[in-house]
Amino acid sequence: MPITTPLTRLLEIKHPVLLAPMDVIAGSRLVRAVSSAGGFGILGGGYGEKAWLEQESAKLAELRAPFGIGFITWSLAKRPELLDIALAARPSAIMLSFGDPAPFAPRIRSAGARLICQVQDETMARQALDAGADIVIAQGTEAGGHGASRTTVDLVPAIVDLAAGRVPVVAAGGIADGRGLAAMMMLGASGVLLGTRFYASQEADGADEAKRRICAASSGSTVRGIIFDLSRNNVWPAPFTGRCLINDHARRWIGREVELMQNVAAVSAEYAAAKISGDFDVAAVIAGEAVGLIHDIPPAAEIIERIASEAEQLLAGRRNSIASFA
Amino acid sequence: MPITTPLTRLLEIKHPVLLAPMDVIAGSRLVRAVSSAGGFGILGGGYGEKAWLEQESAKLAELRAPFGIGFITWSLAKRPELLDIALAARPSAIMLSFGDPAPFAPRIRSAGARLICQVQDETMARQALDAGADIVIAQGTEAGGHGASRTTVDLVPAIVDLAAGRVPVVAAGGIADGRGLAAMMMLGASGVLLGTRFYASQEADGADEAKRRICAASSGSTVRGIIFDLSRNNVWPAPFTGRCLINDHARRWIGREVELMQNVAAVSAEYAAAKISGDFDVAAVIAGEAVGLIHDIPPAAEIIERIASEAEQLLAGRRNSIASFA
Repeated sequence: MPITTPLTRLLEIKHPVLLAPMDVIAGSRLVRAVSSAGGFGILGGGYGEKAWLEQESAKLAELRAPFGIGFITWSLAKRPELLDIALAARPSAIMLSFGDPAPFAPRIRSAGARLICQVQDETMARQALDAGADIVIAQGTEAGGHGASRTTVDLVPAIVDLAAGRVPVVAAGGIADGRGLAAMMMLGASGVLLGTRFYASQEADGADEAKRRICAASSGSTVRGIIFDLSRNNVWPAPFTGRCLINDHARRWIGREVELMQNVAAVSAEYAAAKISGDFDVAAVIAGEAVGLIHDIPPAAEIIERIASEAEQLLAGRRNSIASFA
Repeated sequence: MPITTPLTRLLEIKHPVLLAPMDVIAGSRLVRAVSSAGGFGILGGGYGEKAWLEQESAKLAELRAPFGIGFITWSLAKRPELLDIALAARPSAIMLSFGDPAPFAPRIRSAGARLICQVQDETMARQALDAGADIVIAQGTEAGGHGASRTTVDLVPAIVDLAAGRVPVVAAGGIADGRGLAAMMMLGASGVLLGTRFYASQEADGADEAKRRICAASSGSTVRGIIFDLSRNNVWPAPFTGRCLINDHARRWIGREVELMQNVAAVSAEYAAAKISGDFDVAAVIAGEAVGLIHDIPPAAEIIERIASEAEQLLAGRRNSIASFA
């Protein structure tokens, strides 16, 4: 029996599994694959590359399954016209992360889309609820890419208690299988948002070598910090930092951030060249702590099927297994 | 229906809830309260204060419920004779944390006690299994007191997969209620080990003011680092650091650890005086990320009853609630 929650009912989806709007990686192909399989794909609007957004969102306009489009809020604030391009594709929801969602909420609402806000602490959660968020995503530090310091096990129940049933809470950070979905539901979440797990899918717009490294990585082999942002001259506001696989470049610069800044011209040239050539000993593979649970690169639909069926078995079968233990 | 797992069967306990052997805090009174309520109390042998250990373990020798005694492994290695004092009380188990358990395993086994090993990563888990651990505790960075950097949501499934059913895995770090127990069971754990939740109990040997501060603290108000160890001239081996409530002393020294070391005589004198006078603006209240879930100071038996009954409802009722969602 499929797991239905306040989240699946609100978004009219079959499985409580959302695709993180990973910049560049979560293109229209991956969004289509996730949404068509009964999850909720969210396009990685990221920093707002206009031509890319127009092209990818146009491809989604005809998708018959619900989907969303995500933005980095502080970046969207610099180019607010991009929201109109996104809304023109008629997404079911706009997801905003990393900044105050209030300025964008009225436009999203009047377009008939839901507002999904990702938060990293209680202050941001209150801000999201005040702005009228329909869904709040509690993102733990385990997540790949940008995030903050609070952990998933700490943050999810805290945000669930704060939301107090007013809106569904979705857990993000360190989750890649049905055990994680079932566990987060026990903490009170209505679903999960997955990035790294979908990065290692056939439809993700990432380099094959990056996907291969995610599969090969064992748990404990990612690091959160500012190295890769510094190395690409990408200044983020506090308290946000980025998590990626530990590679030669990260090992070289961890703990030497000031020195990196003093040599930023040379380092960023080297880094940009590595990104172009696909040298992932230097360029970062942006990935989260869940890498240890990821060992293959299946179609996104298979990922969703596995997660849903494992969680269903854990949740539905638990009663019997407890009885049999006794 | 009580939750029975491989852990409850192995330790012959009613509820899969273990008391963390908190140094000084988990005395014989708290151990007795936890074990008598159907959990598993573990005496905080800590660094091995001989007179205290003799006194407290003697009080437990007549306890009719199963209990354990815990040690800091690297500290026990300096005074291995303390293990004999502990074993003389006929505990069901000895718990070892922070160091190689192998040198102590034969003596524990020949005394008829189980070996519980707490680990913070896969390398330590392999070491514990090689030493013949009967139970492995996967401790996430959320835990109060000493620990390392990997998070509970990341570490628990990793250690469950590594143990592969050979021994029960117990989750520790950031857990204080039945939601946490149920969630950890979904991740594959057979139970949980709780420190901070039991610190804020009537039977814990902690200062009332420390317990009050735990209840008052909101989530996100603890920090992991080396400030309180430096301030008491307590040198721990890498990779272990300590988590405590953020107080004036922590705020003053975070990020200035080198300067603290340069002034260690003055700081440690101030710190020692604060410990004696109970000034918790300076002395650390050692506590974990679960503080946000803790709001009262009940008897330990009530804590266990609440956690068990909440988890039982979540686990057993899940099937019905899923059906009703559908």
